[in-house]
Amino acid sequence: MSNPNSSSMIISMCVMGLGMHPGAWRYRDGSPDDYLKLDYFTHAAKVAEKGKLHAMFLADTLAVSEENFERPNLGATDPTVVLSMVAAATQNIGLVATASSTYNEPYNIARRFSSLDHLSGGRAAWNIVTTFVPDVAANFGNGGLPDHGDRYKRANEFVEIVFKLWDSWGDGSLIGDKERNIFADGARVNTLNYEGEHYAVKGPLTLPRTPQGRPLLYQAGSSGTGRDLAARFADVVFTAQNTKTAALEFRADVRQRAAAFGRDPDSIKVTPGLMTILGGTEAEARARKAELDELSGQAELKKLALRVGCKVDDLKLDEPMPVDLIMSNEKFRASQGFRAAALRLATEKKLTVREVLYRNGGGHRQIVGTPEQAAKMIESWWRDGAVDGFNLMIDVVPSGLEAFVEHVVPILQKRGIFQSEYSGNTLRDNLGIAHKAVKAA
Amino acid sequence: MSNPNSSSMIISMCVMGLGMHPGAWRYRDGSPDDYLKLDYFTHAAKVAEKGKLHAMFLADTLAVSEENFERPNLGATDPTVVLSMVAAATQNIGLVATASSTYNEPYNIARRFSSLDHLSGGRAAWNIVTTFVPDVAANFGNGGLPDHGDRYKRANEFVEIVFKLWDSWGDGSLIGDKERNIFADGARVNTLNYEGEHYAVKGPLTLPRTPQGRPLLYQAGSSGTGRDLAARFADVVFTAQNTKTAALEFRADVRQRAAAFGRDPDSIKVTPGLMTILGGTEAEARARKAELDELSGQAELKKLALRVGCKVDDLKLDEPMPVDLIMSNEKFRASQGFRAAALRLATEKKLTVREVLYRNGGGHRQIVGTPEQAAKMIESWWRDGAVDGFNLMIDVVPSGLEAFVEHVVPILQKRGIFQSEYSGNTLRDNLGIAHKAVKAA
Repeated sequence: MSNPNSSSMIISMCVMGLGMHPGAWRYRDGSPDDYLKLDYFTHAAKVAEKGKLHAMFLADTLAVSEENFERPNLGATDPTVVLSMVAAATQNIGLVATASSTYNEPYNIARRFSSLDHLSGGRAAWNIVTTFVPDVAANFGNGGLPDHGDRYKRANEFVEIVFKLWDSWGDGSLIGDKERNIFADGARVNTLNYEGEHYAVKGPLTLPRTPQGRPLLYQAGSSGTGRDLAARFADVVFTAQNTKTAALEFRADVRQRAAAFGRDPDSIKVTPGLMTILGGTEAEARARKAELDELSGQAELKKLALRVGCKVDDLKLDEPMPVDLIMSNEKFRASQGFRAAALRLATEKKLTVREVLYRNGGGHRQIVGTPEQAAKMIESWWRDGAVDGFNLMIDVVPSGLEAFVEHVVPILQKRGIFQSEYSGNTLRDNLGIAHKAVKAA
Repeated sequence: MSNPNSSSMIISMCVMGLGMHPGAWRYRDGSPDDYLKLDYFTHAAKVAEKGKLHAMFLADTLAVSEENFERPNLGATDPTVVLSMVAAATQNIGLVATASSTYNEPYNIARRFSSLDHLSGGRAAWNIVTTFVPDVAANFGNGGLPDHGDRYKRANEFVEIVFKLWDSWGDGSLIGDKERNIFADGARVNTLNYEGEHYAVKGPLTLPRTPQGRPLLYQAGSSGTGRDLAARFADVVFTAQNTKTAALEFRADVRQRAAAFGRDPDSIKVTPGLMTILGGTEAEARARKAELDELSGQAELKKLALRVGCKVDDLKLDEPMPVDLIMSNEKFRASQGFRAAALRLATEKKLTVREVLYRNGGGHRQIVGTPEQAAKMIESWWRDGAVDGFNLMIDVVPSGLEAFVEHVVPILQKRGIFQSEYSGNTLRDNLGIAHKAVKAA
């Protein structure tokens, strides 16, 4: 399948903790509490903007786990707070904040992202997740984590409401005629009176439509119901795909599902995570990875065990992944997408655990190599139609990001597959995703 | 009663819509949609910072009412989004964001304000409200607005939890020793396992203690239960007091209640709202007010009717306030503090409705006059111990704020009752409110 729609590849970047690699906090220069500092985030955003990256993407973590005492909690700070600050310090880069539909109210989410979109001049996106971590549930009452199906039923209603709230002020309803004393035309503003199975929301929103019409919707979650949620509503899908074949299938499936919902498949973009560990030579890149791994102890191995739902001891570095054992775990409740991606990689390529760890960084596709090697892989997946772009999982911030912007971006630009300038003022403009006008009632 | 505690008067300022006066959007230069623009807020913050004002305070509105089609919705944008942006554009000014305890989850609020406090370098405060607007309830399910008592019971639990979450990482638990590979000491981080009547929250928070120890807590709500909530937990009280006598009594009462909860009364600051309409001469100030009133139609009259819970037609401009009629309204569910302040003004001073409107702006004490007259009133209330300072309700933004900073602040500074420099790095430092260390478990 060719890549018919993208005039430019989409590249966003994710800043997690002090870098996605568990050894990042020890490897990097700077203070271990930099992940609590404004300059840390604005510096990263400015570097990414210099490289014309489309967006800064922030994950969200609503609980502490044991590993958070071993290294900075990934997603500890509220993404909408961080990205609001980034908005004030940048001009063009998109702002993608993750927020859970299970542990927020639709009105609050609609208002928060509308505010961010207005005040950033049209750069906001909401990455919807339904949350798969039981520890999070315990921070929001004692009802336990709703099961996967329930979470997605709620999520579908939630997004319907948020879209209706974003659209509640019809285009042109804010008139602002000082002379004639007409601020807004209330007749063009719609109440929702939404009554669903899980939510009742009267509306309208406190805010008119945003510079993007609506903020963008990103979706992360690769189960069947997750894909359907994306296919119905999302503009961009964030996913873990560890092989090109898997990514090809995934993108084709999402596009097909979107078409089944009556949408133009080109209106939905698929951007898997990609962790890059770069060096001037392959040996330097491998040395960077080796040092990171050593500094982190067995952290990546532990994370892999967590992602696939087995014990660390079940994973022997020089033996194949114990796929049958893993699949027999009926208590598995974590992300289906991460598990499937890792197992697919292991079986398709017949890899040992050690080899899986080399190609899978924090659950995502990982490449350890030179800028040229990274650019080649990126171009190959994109040209083959496996992706619309990538969400970079930066190994160590800011050095991994600086290396990508300085050395990989120019190669992609030279080959004419990545933008050398932002093409418009809003994130929608830059991603080539149209915004829909909404007529008054 | 003297004012024994304040080395410097506290002055914060509130930016609502395009100014607190309903005619502001027509009166001011600039576009009617400036209230949706980043520069509008950052400009105001920078002006306030130039005047060494302590904080920028933002109200929060979670519903649209009919009047929101007549002028910009006050508090339309999410205050935490706006103030995060302001944080990135300023150095010293405090950031006070209103959020409802009735329509948020404690874990989300604790995390959002902790994030803002960390990333702003210790400038965050949460202004807790319980929400008294039935239209808001309808945006959050169909259960209706909980009654006053219920809202405050929930609020008390809510704050207890938020404080415990803010304190959950004991001081020094983030160790950050790269060499020895010790990021944090999990033994110093406490789970809450909080099980209350309304909330169950396991904890801990995702974030260590903030630069202020804890973000500050502001409280707005002047009923008896509201005062008790403030007396138990708050650092600063925001209130509507329309006469000095009423303010004196209110502050004395709050201090007494704080003492009854075992607190040092000097640790709680009372800052009523103050709307200033300034002119180079008194005639100019009166002309500014007259033009604003004319531009707004009967908006202030309608607002007064809403605040006291009667019909507009019940208020005759040149007759006394119909206090008995107002008090006989058993269906009154709106803010008790606003109603009491307006009625107290009317009865204590024996004022007509027109006179009330001259001294009451948007529910708050209003002064129409020269900078010297404003400074005199401010000094008098402060020297007499009626207040620890004021929260300025800016009539028109930015001109009303610029006038205050350029002409009133220098008078107060010259008299030695307002700061000429920020005294510290955090909002606590600048308000003279100590932060409490929290030992590990």
